[in-house]
Amino acid sequence: MCDISGGYQVRCIGILTSGGDAPGMNAAVRAVTRTAIYKGLQVKGIYRGYKGLISDEIKDFQTENVSNIIQRGGTVLKTARSDEFRTHEGRVQAYENMRKHGIDALVVIGGDGTLTAAKLFAAEFNIPIVGIPGTIDNDLSGTDSTIGYATALNTIMDAVDKIRDTASSHDRLFVVEVMGRDAGFLALNGAIASGAEVAIIPEYKEAEEQITQMIANGFRKSKNSSIVLVAESEATGGALGVAERIKEGHPEYDVRVSILGHMQRGGSPCAQDRILASRMGVAAVEALLDGQRNVMVGIVNDEIVLVPFSRAIKDDKTVDRAMVKALEMLSL
Amino acid sequence: MCDISGGYQVRCIGILTSGGDAPGMNAAVRAVTRTAIYKGLQVKGIYRGYKGLISDEIKDFQTENVSNIIQRGGTVLKTARSDEFRTHEGRVQAYENMRKHGIDALVVIGGDGTLTAAKLFAAEFNIPIVGIPGTIDNDLSGTDSTIGYATALNTIMDAVDKIRDTASSHDRLFVVEVMGRDAGFLALNGAIASGAEVAIIPEYKEAEEQITQMIANGFRKSKNSSIVLVAESEATGGALGVAERIKEGHPEYDVRVSILGHMQRGGSPCAQDRILASRMGVAAVEALLDGQRNVMVGIVNDEIVLVPFSRAIKDDKTVDRAMVKALEMLSL
Amino acid sequence: MCDISGGYQVRCIGILTSGGDAPGMNAAVRAVTRTAIYKGLQVKGIYRGYKGLISDEIKDFQTENVSNIIQRGGTVLKTARSDEFRTHEGRVQAYENMRKHGIDALVVIGGDGTLTAAKLFAAEFNIPIVGIPGTIDNDLSGTDSTIGYATALNTIMDAVDKIRDTASSHDRLFVVEVMGRDAGFLALNGAIASGAEVAIIPEYKEAEEQITQMIANGFRKSKNSSIVLVAESEATGGALGVAERIKEGHPEYDVRVSILGHMQRGGSPCAQDRILASRMGVAAVEALLDGQRNVMVGIVNDEIVLVPFSRAIKDDKTVDRAMVKALEMLSL
Amino acid sequence: MCDISGGYQVRCIGILTSGGDAPGMNAAVRAVTRTAIYKGLQVKGIYRGYKGLISDEIKDFQTENVSNIIQRGGTVLKTARSDEFRTHEGRVQAYENMRKHGIDALVVIGGDGTLTAAKLFAAEFNIPIVGIPGTIDNDLSGTDSTIGYATALNTIMDAVDKIRDTASSHDRLFVVEVMGRDAGFLALNGAIASGAEVAIIPEYKEAEEQITQMIANGFRKSKNSSIVLVAESEATGGALGVAERIKEGHPEYDVRVSILGHMQRGGSPCAQDRILASRMGVAAVEALLDGQRNVMVGIVNDEIVLVPFSRAIKDDKTVDRAMVKALEMLSL
Repeated sequence: MCDISGGYQVRCIGILTSGGDAPGMNAAVRAVTRTAIYKGLQVKGIYRGYKGLISDEIKDFQTENVSNIIQRGGTVLKTARSDEFRTHEGRVQAYENMRKHGIDALVVIGGDGTLTAAKLFAAEFNIPIVGIPGTIDNDLSGTDSTIGYATALNTIMDAVDKIRDTASSHDRLFVVEVMGRDAGFLALNGAIASGAEVAIIPEYKEAEEQITQMIANGFRKSKNSSIVLVAESEATGGALGVAERIKEGHPEYDVRVSILGHMQRGGSPCAQDRILASRMGVAAVEALLDGQRNVMVGIVNDEIVLVPFSRAIKDDKTVDRAMVKALEMLSL
Repeated sequence: MCDISGGYQVRCIGILTSGGDAPGMNAAVRAVTRTAIYKGLQVKGIYRGYKGLISDEIKDFQTENVSNIIQRGGTVLKTARSDEFRTHEGRVQAYENMRKHGIDALVVIGGDGTLTAAKLFAAEFNIPIVGIPGTIDNDLSGTDSTIGYATALNTIMDAVDKIRDTASSHDRLFVVEVMGRDAGFLALNGAIASGAEVAIIPEYKEAEEQITQMIANGFRKSKNSSIVLVAESEATGGALGVAERIKEGHPEYDVRVSILGHMQRGGSPCAQDRILASRMGVAAVEALLDGQRNVMVGIVNDEIVLVPFSRAIKDDKTVDRAMVKALEMLSL
Repeated sequence: MCDISGGYQVRCIGILTSGGDAPGMNAAVRAVTRTAIYKGLQVKGIYRGYKGLISDEIKDFQTENVSNIIQRGGTVLKTARSDEFRTHEGRVQAYENMRKHGIDALVVIGGDGTLTAAKLFAAEFNIPIVGIPGTIDNDLSGTDSTIGYATALNTIMDAVDKIRDTASSHDRLFVVEVMGRDAGFLALNGAIASGAEVAIIPEYKEAEEQITQMIANGFRKSKNSSIVLVAESEATGGALGVAERIKEGHPEYDVRVSILGHMQRGGSPCAQDRILASRMGVAAVEALLDGQRNVMVGIVNDEIVLVPFSRAIKDDKTVDRAMVKALEMLSL
Repeated sequence: MCDISGGYQVRCIGILTSGGDAPGMNAAVRAVTRTAIYKGLQVKGIYRGYKGLISDEIKDFQTENVSNIIQRGGTVLKTARSDEFRTHEGRVQAYENMRKHGIDALVVIGGDGTLTAAKLFAAEFNIPIVGIPGTIDNDLSGTDSTIGYATALNTIMDAVDKIRDTASSHDRLFVVEVMGRDAGFLALNGAIASGAEVAIIPEYKEAEEQITQMIANGFRKSKNSSIVLVAESEATGGALGVAERIKEGHPEYDVRVSILGHMQRGGSPCAQDRILASRMGVAAVEALLDGQRNVMVGIVNDEIVLVPFSRAIKDDKTVDRAMVKALEMLSL
C-alpha cells in the first residue's frame, strides 16, 4: 500500500493510458513501471484510463506485469472515454480512489484530450501529474514526435507499397485516405516515404493545385500510375471527396479509393517508437522524483524536454513547408 | 525470331498476365521464362495481357528479364482489361501479332476471365495455350489453391492483427471487409487465421445467425472485443451492411468498420505463393512440350495436375463446412 | 477437478508442448483448449512439457487463458527437455500427477522426440494420447506439413531477400545456413522461394555438383550475385564447410557466410500455420472423443488424417526430387 | 551530353554509391536524380562507385531510371571497393571520365571511406562534391543519423523479437551479435528497442559488469530468459567471445549464440530512412546549386546541415551514456 501523507515525496505512481491507443504505449508503461521500481517506488496500473480511476480498476504492478509487452501494439492498460471524468463528481471519485490506493502521483499517456483532462485534474486536487505524448497523429506541440507516429507512418508506407504494386500493374490512379485528426503529418510524410505523387492535407490549400497540375501533365505520360494521399478531415473532404473531384474533371481515369482505417492505430511498434517510449517513460519518473509536475515529457532535437500542459495542447504545430516542396520535386 | 511453321513442335512461347493482379504472378513469369529457355525455347513477354497482344506490346525475353522479380508484388508484364479482345476482329489482330513474332504457344496467367478468353481464343485459332491460375480469390475449380491467395490471406491476417490491438484496447466490435469476388475463402480462412469471431460469407446464410448468437452471448462477457470478417458481395451487404444490421439491434455497441481494399492485391508474395508459382510455371512449359493444350495447371494434393479450361471456370468450388464449424468453436 | 474413473469417457484433457518450439504452437494450444471446452470437457495446461508433468506445473485452463495468443510465436506453455521422463520413475511421477489433477487424456504438441516419448508413456500406463506435429523441420512422416514449417520458410525467405539486396549490390556469393535437423525441406524450398541458386541438402549428393556447375558457368556471367542455401547437417558441412570448399577452388570469389540461427524458430506464425494448427487442434480433441488414441494428427491432401505414432516417427519422409530439378532450371 | 566548361555553374551531376550498401540509398539516388532534373540539370548514374567512375560505367539518368526504387534495399547503382582509386593514376582516369561525360559535380553516397576518398578527389581536381551519409553503422560525425541506420535497427529488433519467442519458451540465455563497425549504436539502441537485458559495446567497459550483475542476480529469478546484444568488434570479442566468458563462470547455463550477419544491411527501408534519404538527396542538389562543395549533408535537430568532410570523418561520435543507464533500469 502506498502512503500519500508526508509532503510531496512521491512514493507511489499510478499509470494510465487514455484516448486513442497508439503503438508504443506498452513500451512507455513498461519503462515507467520499471524505472519507478528501480528507484524504489511503488506502481499501480490503472485500467481504462480516467474511467478506471473512477470505477476503481486499479492493480499493483511489479516488474513482471510489464514483461514481454514492449513489442505489442495497443495498450495492456486498455483505454476508454470517460464522460464522468468531465464532471466534478467524477473527478472527486477519481481522487478518492487515488488516496485509497495510496497513489500520490500520476503518469498519463495519451493525446490532446488526455493532457487537457490531466491539467484540470492536477489543478483541482494539487496532484503531481506528468504526461507522455501517445498518439499516432503527432499533433502535440512542444515535442518533435509523439509515441506511435513513427509506427503509423510505417504502416501507411507498407500499405501504399502494396497498393502501388497493383496500381502500377493496372496503370491506375489511387486515392488513399490516412488518419491524422486534422493534421497533415501522416499524409505528407507518408507520401514522401511511399513515393506517392501528391498529399492533400488540411494545412495547405495548394495541394489541390498539385493534383490539378499532376493531371494537367497527364498522369500517364511520365508515370504508369499515381497515388494521392489524403488526410482525413473535413477540410480535405477525405479520399472519397478528392476522388469525386478528380473524376468530375476526368471521367476517363480509372480512379480507385482506399481508406486505410483503424489498422493504422495498431501493430507492433517500430524501433523508433519503442526507443522514444522507453526514454519518455524513464524521463517521466525522473521528472516526478525531481519535483516536476503538470508537464508533458517531450523530445526536441533528440533531447528530452519538459513542456507545460498548456503549451503541449496549444494546437499550433505545423507541417514543414519544405517537405511540401520536396514532395513536389520528388514526384516528378 | 520464332518460327511457327513445321507442325506442333513448340519453339517460342508467349507469356502474359491478365485480369486482376496477384502476388506471385512475377514468380510464375520468371519460372515460365527460365524453364522455357532451359529447354531451348524462345520466350516473348506480352505486356498488358490480351490488350498488348492486340496492340503489339511484345518483347524478347531472356533470363535477365526476369532477374530479381520473384520477390515483387504486382506483375512486371502489367495487366489490363481488353474490350477489343472480346470481338472477333480483336482476336484476329492478336493472332496475327502472334504469327508476326513467331509465337506458337501461349502461357496465360490470371483468373476466371483470363481462362475463359483463352479457351475461346485457343478454339478459334487452334493455338496451344496453357493457363496458370493467378488470383487472390481462390475461386477457380480443379486446383486447391491459386497464386496470390496465400499472400492475400497473410495480408488480411496482418491487418486484422493490427485492428485487434486497437479493438481490444478499446473493447470495440470491428467489422472488417475483405475481398473475394463472391467467394468466402479469404473471409473464412482469414477469420480463422486472425482469430476473428465470425465470418460472414455469401455461401452460408447461417453466418448471420452466428453474429446474432455472438451478440446474444454478450460479446463483452467472455471477450473484451470482437472482430467480424465480411466477404465483399451483394449477398453479404459488405461490412457497411453488416455493421448497420448490428447497430440496428444494438445501438449501444461501439461498432467500427474497416474496408481493407486494394492493398490485399499487392505486396511481396509469401513463400507458399512463390513456390506454387514456380512449380506451376515449370509445369506449364513442360505441359506445352508434352503436347498438352487448353488446360490450366492446378495443384491438387500437393501434386501438379492439368485441368481442362471448361472445368477450371466452372465456378463450383465451395468452402469447407468443417471450417465454418471450426471457427464457431474457436471463437468461444 | 477432473475425474479419471468410469471407463474411457474423456472428461479432462491435459495439454503440453515439448521439444523445440515452433510458431503456431500457441494456435494449437488455443484450438485444443477452446474445442475441448466447447465440447464440455475440462482442460489443464501443463507447463514445460513432460518436465512440468513430473514437477506438477499444471494449471486449470479456461477460454480466457488462450485469448490473444494465436498471433504469438513460441509457446505460452513453455517447453523443456526432461531427462527424468526418460526414466520409469519419472514417468510414474508424471502419471500420478495426471491422476491427481484428474487428467484422463493428453494432447502433446512437438516433434519426433515428443511423439516417441508419448508412445512409450501411453503404452506403459494405458493413457489416451493424441499428438500434434509441431516442428519447423517438417521431418515427421504421415503428414504433408508440420506446424511451424511454413512460418520458418517465410522467415528464411525474408532473410535471404535482405541478403540478396546486399549480395547484388556487391556482386557477391553468399552461403546461407538454415535449420532442418538433417532434413533438406527448409533449405530446398527456402531456395526456391527466395530465388537462391543452389540448395545443399543432406538427401542429395549431387547438389554439390550443382555448385560446381554454377561456378563452372561463371557465376558472374549471367548473374551479378549468387546465393547458396545449406541445410545444417554433418552431411553438408554447414555453410562454413561449403564456403571453404568454394574458396579452395576459387580464392578470387568474394564469398560471405550467414548462419540464420534461432530466429528461424520464432516470430508470429503465418496464416498457413495458424490455420493448420487450428484445424489440428480441433481434430485432436475430436479424435480423443471418438475413442482414438496414440495417433498423431496429420494433414494429407488438405484433409485431416490420423497417423499411428510408430508411423509418424519412422523418419522416412523425403524431399521431392522434382523440386531439386525445378531449382536447377529456375536458377538459370 | 553535359558541358563542364564555363565556370562553376553546375549543369550535370554524377551520382554514385560506394562502400557497404545501406537501405535507403535508392531513395537518395531517386531524390538526387529527380531534384536535379526538376532544377534543369542533367544527371549521370555512375555504377559500382569509384570503380565504375574509372572503368566508365556511366549512364544517362532520366526520371524513369529511378521509378519504383524508393522501396528497395541495396543500391541500383551497385557498389564496390576500388583499390585503383587509391592511386593517383586511378583518380586521373576517373577525372577524365567525368570530363568525357560532362559531369561537373558529384554526389557520393556512402560512409567513412567514401567521404575520405571524396575529400581527396575534390582537393586534387577542384571538383564540387557533396556527400550523403549512407551507412547502417551511424558512425559519421556531424549528423544525428545516417541513411540505413533506422532500418538496420528495425531489422535487429525484428530478429531479436523472434529470438525472444524461442528464448522465453526455453528459459535460455541468448547472446546476439549485431553489426556496427566498432560503434555501439546498433547494439545499444537495438537492445533498448527489443527489450534485451544487456548491450556489450566497445565504448563502455562496464557493460561487462552489467552482465556479471545480471548473472549475480540470477537471470532466472525475475526473468524466464535473457538476451544480450553484442557489437561486433575486437574490443567486445563478439558474441562467441562473450558467450564463452559467460559459460566459463556458469557452465550450467543454456547459452546460445546468434550472429545476425549481412541481413542487417538489406531489406526495404523503413519510413524514417526513406524520408531522411529523400530530404538529404534534395539538399545535396540544392547545396551544389548554391555553390557549396566538399561537404556532407547532415541532419541535426531535424534540420538539414552541411558538414565539412574533415568534420564528418573525424570519428568522434559517441553513444549517449544516459541510454546505457536507461537500459540498465529497463531490464530490471
